[in-house]
Amino acid sequence: QVLDDGGDLTHWIHEKHPSLFQTLKGIVEESLTGIHRLYQLSKAGKLCLPAFNVNDCVTKQKFDSLYCCKESVLSGLKRTTDVMFGGKQVLVCGYGEVGEADQLTSCLAQVGKGCCAALKAVGAVVYVTEADPICALQACMDGFRVVRMEEVAAQVDVVITCTGNKNVVVRKHLDRMKNGCIVCNMGHSNTEIDLASLRTAELRWERVRSHVDHVIWPDGKRILLLAEGRLLNLSCSTVPSIVLSITTTTQALALMELYSAPEGRYKQDIYLLPKKTGTLTPQYPSTHTHPAQGPGPPLWSHKSPRSDLCVCVLDEFVAALHLPTFDAHLTELSEEQARYLGVSKTGPFKPHHYR
Amino acid sequence: QVLDDGGDLTHWIHEKHPSLFQTLKGIVEESLTGIHRLYQLSKAGKLCLPAFNVNDCVTKQKFDSLYCCKESVLSGLKRTTDVMFGGKQVLVCGYGEVGEADQLTSCLAQVGKGCCAALKAVGAVVYVTEADPICALQACMDGFRVVRMEEVAAQVDVVITCTGNKNVVVRKHLDRMKNGCIVCNMGHSNTEIDLASLRTAELRWERVRSHVDHVIWPDGKRILLLAEGRLLNLSCSTVPSIVLSITTTTQALALMELYSAPEGRYKQDIYLLPKKTGTLTPQYPSTHTHPAQGPGPPLWSHKSPRSDLCVCVLDEFVAALHLPTFDAHLTELSEEQARYLGVSKTGPFKPHHYR
Amino acid sequence: QVLDDGGDLTHWIHEKHPSLFQTLKGIVEESLTGIHRLYQLSKAGKLCLPAFNVNDCVTKQKFDSLYCCKESVLSGLKRTTDVMFGGKQVLVCGYGEVGEADQLTSCLAQVGKGCCAALKAVGAVVYVTEADPICALQACMDGFRVVRMEEVAAQVDVVITCTGNKNVVVRKHLDRMKNGCIVCNMGHSNTEIDLASLRTAELRWERVRSHVDHVIWPDGKRILLLAEGRLLNLSCSTVPSIVLSITTTTQALALMELYSAPEGRYKQDIYLLPKKTGTLTPQYPSTHTHPAQGPGPPLWSHKSPRSDLCVCVLDEFVAALHLPTFDAHLTELSEEQARYLGVSKTGPFKPHHYR
Amino acid sequence: QVLDDGGDLTHWIHEKHPSLFQTLKGIVEESLTGIHRLYQLSKAGKLCLPAFNVNDCVTKQKFDSLYCCKESVLSGLKRTTDVMFGGKQVLVCGYGEVGEADQLTSCLAQVGKGCCAALKAVGAVVYVTEADPICALQACMDGFRVVRMEEVAAQVDVVITCTGNKNVVVRKHLDRMKNGCIVCNMGHSNTEIDLASLRTAELRWERVRSHVDHVIWPDGKRILLLAEGRLLNLSCSTVPSIVLSITTTTQALALMELYSAPEGRYKQDIYLLPKKTGTLTPQYPSTHTHPAQGPGPPLWSHKSPRSDLCVCVLDEFVAALHLPTFDAHLTELSEEQARYLGVSKTGPFKPHHYR
Repeated sequence: QVLDDGGDLTHWIHEKHPSLFQTLKGIVEESLTGIHRLYQLSKAGKLCLPAFNVNDCVTKQKFDSLYCCKESVLSGLKRTTDVMFGGKQVLVCGYGEVGEADQLTSCLAQVGKGCCAALKAVGAVVYVTEADPICALQACMDGFRVVRMEEVAAQVDVVITCTGNKNVVVRKHLDRMKNGCIVCNMGHSNTEIDLASLRTAELRWERVRSHVDHVIWPDGKRILLLAEGRLLNLSCSTVPSIVLSITTTTQALALMELYSAPEGRYKQDIYLLPKKTGTLTPQYPSTHTHPAQGPGPPLWSHKSPRSDLCVCVLDEFVAALHLPTFDAHLTELSEEQARYLGVSKTGPFKPHHYR
Repeated sequence: QVLDDGGDLTHWIHEKHPSLFQTLKGIVEESLTGIHRLYQLSKAGKLCLPAFNVNDCVTKQKFDSLYCCKESVLSGLKRTTDVMFGGKQVLVCGYGEVGEADQLTSCLAQVGKGCCAALKAVGAVVYVTEADPICALQACMDGFRVVRMEEVAAQVDVVITCTGNKNVVVRKHLDRMKNGCIVCNMGHSNTEIDLASLRTAELRWERVRSHVDHVIWPDGKRILLLAEGRLLNLSCSTVPSIVLSITTTTQALALMELYSAPEGRYKQDIYLLPKKTGTLTPQYPSTHTHPAQGPGPPLWSHKSPRSDLCVCVLDEFVAALHLPTFDAHLTELSEEQARYLGVSKTGPFKPHHYR
Repeated sequence: QVLDDGGDLTHWIHEKHPSLFQTLKGIVEESLTGIHRLYQLSKAGKLCLPAFNVNDCVTKQKFDSLYCCKESVLSGLKRTTDVMFGGKQVLVCGYGEVGEADQLTSCLAQVGKGCCAALKAVGAVVYVTEADPICALQACMDGFRVVRMEEVAAQVDVVITCTGNKNVVVRKHLDRMKNGCIVCNMGHSNTEIDLASLRTAELRWERVRSHVDHVIWPDGKRILLLAEGRLLNLSCSTVPSIVLSITTTTQALALMELYSAPEGRYKQDIYLLPKKTGTLTPQYPSTHTHPAQGPGPPLWSHKSPRSDLCVCVLDEFVAALHLPTFDAHLTELSEEQARYLGVSKTGPFKPHHYR
Repeated sequence: QVLDDGGDLTHWIHEKHPSLFQTLKGIVEESLTGIHRLYQLSKAGKLCLPAFNVNDCVTKQKFDSLYCCKESVLSGLKRTTDVMFGGKQVLVCGYGEVGEADQLTSCLAQVGKGCCAALKAVGAVVYVTEADPICALQACMDGFRVVRMEEVAAQVDVVITCTGNKNVVVRKHLDRMKNGCIVCNMGHSNTEIDLASLRTAELRWERVRSHVDHVIWPDGKRILLLAEGRLLNLSCSTVPSIVLSITTTTQALALMELYSAPEGRYKQDIYLLPKKTGTLTPQYPSTHTHPAQGPGPPLWSHKSPRSDLCVCVLDEFVAALHLPTFDAHLTELSEEQARYLGVSKTGPFKPHHYR
């Protein structure tokens, strides 16, 4: 089996060792980019084994994006600039939200909302730019001023892009920003800040530390550009182990599903994780058991799921496995309640088309 | 045309004056119950004119539910009990979220999340019960303890149900609650608290003020039951005018669409508001104009939309019409950016299946 | 003994029945105004029995002002106007803080800070005006924009005064406010809004409901004035029972101290509550006992303190008596820790000059 | 003049080069420790020149402690452990508050309150231990559960001490903590965690990265001890430049006051910064001027104050100098308002005994 992130390994096998595909059971891919490459292969009729799209499962979309970004925007800014958040005026470009149907914008949507909430919580004064009236109205009701960039460019201390769009911050905005303004990107690629417009003769660049450049205007004004406009959360922050655990548990379950699925269940196609009802319930670890172990705190563990896991509700199973680390206790539906809601007592609790 | 809320008027016409239907252009219905009744009519082949389902439009789902409930849970509790929120231990049953596919649970989901956020913001200590592992994990990461009701029933000061389920609070829980505990319901009907179990001989009821009953145990313990278990937000709170404005604007636009649609566009069926791109943009009022008017502050107004409104993006149009009251300024996409995102500069910005 | 609030009873006895003073043990006064009147009596040599100043005890200053105002500003605005807080732009005049030495400004200081925190927590966009640079810098670091009223008068939806000063909102500000703007006062008297300037011929007043006047400009603009500029928290809100309990417990203890003090301990003077170390510790009620009682939930109760209460640490004793209602458990210092800090294990934990 | 932090330089001059004191104008000392050493010198009659106590000025107490700690507790934990805050159960020992009269406890008090607020804001579930009933009641009303350490030691993920006391976390608590629990100190010295009890034969220490030790129990349980129990904020975080600026501005002004004071104004004693009313007002920089400069963003600057600065209100002056970086605009009192409040239009606005 192949566990890929970005599609490079799959691409390499495809190009160099296509015969390997005969011996493989399948591919598990977790990145958006990798999924796109798989779909291209599939459209070209060149995908010759089953693949699991792990990027689009609920756990990844909901937990990885929102909760990670909330903390990594703070951590990324602090580690690179030691800026004090209290009272800083911050402009966040983009205020999407949970429920966007498209995976790409969904991710980004959560990033904008998460950044705003996190920065407000630590005392920053947050402004939002938005093009979509529905998202703009949500930002308003959540207590953020919705402005155009021109209105506040000269007064803000930090600008963060999370739109998924291109050229959101351009030279005319940068020209208006004040000395010391920090500019960075939490969106999906390095297109949001028009870097080309900063690579000109009259502006001097000075690398002041890793991931921090001063771009210096002829009058001495300095703009602090982080990670050269690439993703702040990936370049300048870390991923908490609990979030990694959620993602990798999902990958592991996908691998197990591929491995143990009856011959012929999965064709040469791209699949989402199954959402069928199974009989297996998570084996909660006792929180207070501490078996002697090697390095690294074993914050949770569980008995090996049995091979009939494949018929489980994978997303919900992954979530359930992580509840003990929060000392959280699920409520069990009574038979009567389950009937009333029209669901099984053991889930799935979300409709099939829920993302 | 019929503008209905709950389906009673439609039912009355259907039963008593069916001939009226011939003269009508259509029905606009905004409640969940009314929609269900319309679907029953439709299935029975008895819906003989077009109907608009306004309940399921984005503006209703997103703004009416979440933002309204956040404020009405506080207001409803304060008006009925004058309780101090700071330091109170509150148990919220149900922590759904935006993005639930089913309309009913979607509404409720936002209620649970909104109640928790609002109560935490004013200093309460909030506990959550959940049956769904994904929602439970979200509650954890948002900073709420996820418990079973038995664990905290004896210590909490307030219990609020928002599950959409039945018999969530039953007699065995009520028996354990402490003297003075407040019990109320923000869910979708009066099924969540098992009232029958409180209507027994050994318990005495005392109406202490409008919407507040003391249920008195033999040992003198008093439980404060609000609105006899009906919806706190509807019974004991008010709806802010801005939220009413969003809902009624949507209804008005639906009526205009029905009225001005070309003959034959809508059949004898139930429709969602159209999401097609139009050319009309909202006419923003100047915020500082105050034409002399009758009673009631004219916080915003707009020029009459033209008859080609029917081809507009209605949800987004409604949202855009309300931005000026927040002094909010939309950013316009450049041609290049719109192309990059694959949307029109004037919207719609959400995919068709977005709810 | 006399239990007074405002000094009217004391004044009446002084004027009409001075002979009564011979038979009285003393006076307990809880209001700022009453304290001033007592000091005037004292200066004039006319105070012929001991008096306790309960206004200046820690419990009153810290709990009554800050926590009460946080909730009453929300409740007062909601009950009178049903305004939605989310996204409203609110200007709070005055941002003092805990620790102000003067009682008057201390109270007000907490009001400003409390109002800002509460309104931000429910989603309002809050601006602050301040004259004192230290308070202004605190407002900045807490995440509020510090502005002059002229800068935002035309755009805000609500104006709240909490300065303790006079003529903070004057006609030139009111003239600039937009239609529908709500104006109210949480400061110490009705001087903060220049009402005289609104009582002019060209402005029409319309009482729309209890405590709500529309002041109508010739062009039809309406300003919503609450409680005619008197205190919103007193006029349009309620006081939670827990806060009343803290205040009245303090009064009761003061009466008991006066009653049981040895002859001659208190002279014809004004006293603060004693802060001496005693041996009495609060008798915590069991949280789960519910003795049969008459109307009104007996949320907490305690055994009658003994007569040696008078040598107790009264402020701390009052606080300790209320901890069980929050299910809070104090940590007891070890002998070693008390020695290290230089305090007694049973308190007082605050220095004598702490207010 | 001597600018000292901790008193080492003063001590060295005193011991090795006492003759230097003749040529010096005075000492400016900013640390608590240094102040204690100066008082010892003074008591012993060995302080032979004037000294300024900068530690006790308002700007240091209010801004350095509270705002710094809020951000450094988050930053210190993140940098050392990459822990995710959302949903973590954190126990904060000590919940003091602004207004404590003693400098030491005042500082610590703000630390406890600041840590709790910051951790709650980023989604942690925060518990508090307190010995003082008044602080405990405040913690309750602010929405924190007040517990004894024994009650939650086995379930929390992080323990932070901020009491200023000794042996707050001892071996019996550490024995109960769960695997992976993080233990650190934000109090005033390394006495709060009983380290001696961890330096025993049966426990193994493993340094996993700078400032992070795993203390390993015989059964494999690992406790993460940060900075060996020394101050997390000093060891594992940084100080934002705005906070440094406030502190160093105060020091600079103290040096200028010493230098320019008329002969004989200051004796061989320890002084607080003067609070007299002067005529000088801060020269606000234009926010949008960016003079060409060397490395480091010149976020604000001001014209040299004149020599009559010594009669200024130094604390308030320092605060006023920093308002422009927040784009904050002070409101000027009218003559009438200043008279009403009984203060000068240009300050000081706080009474002399305000700290």
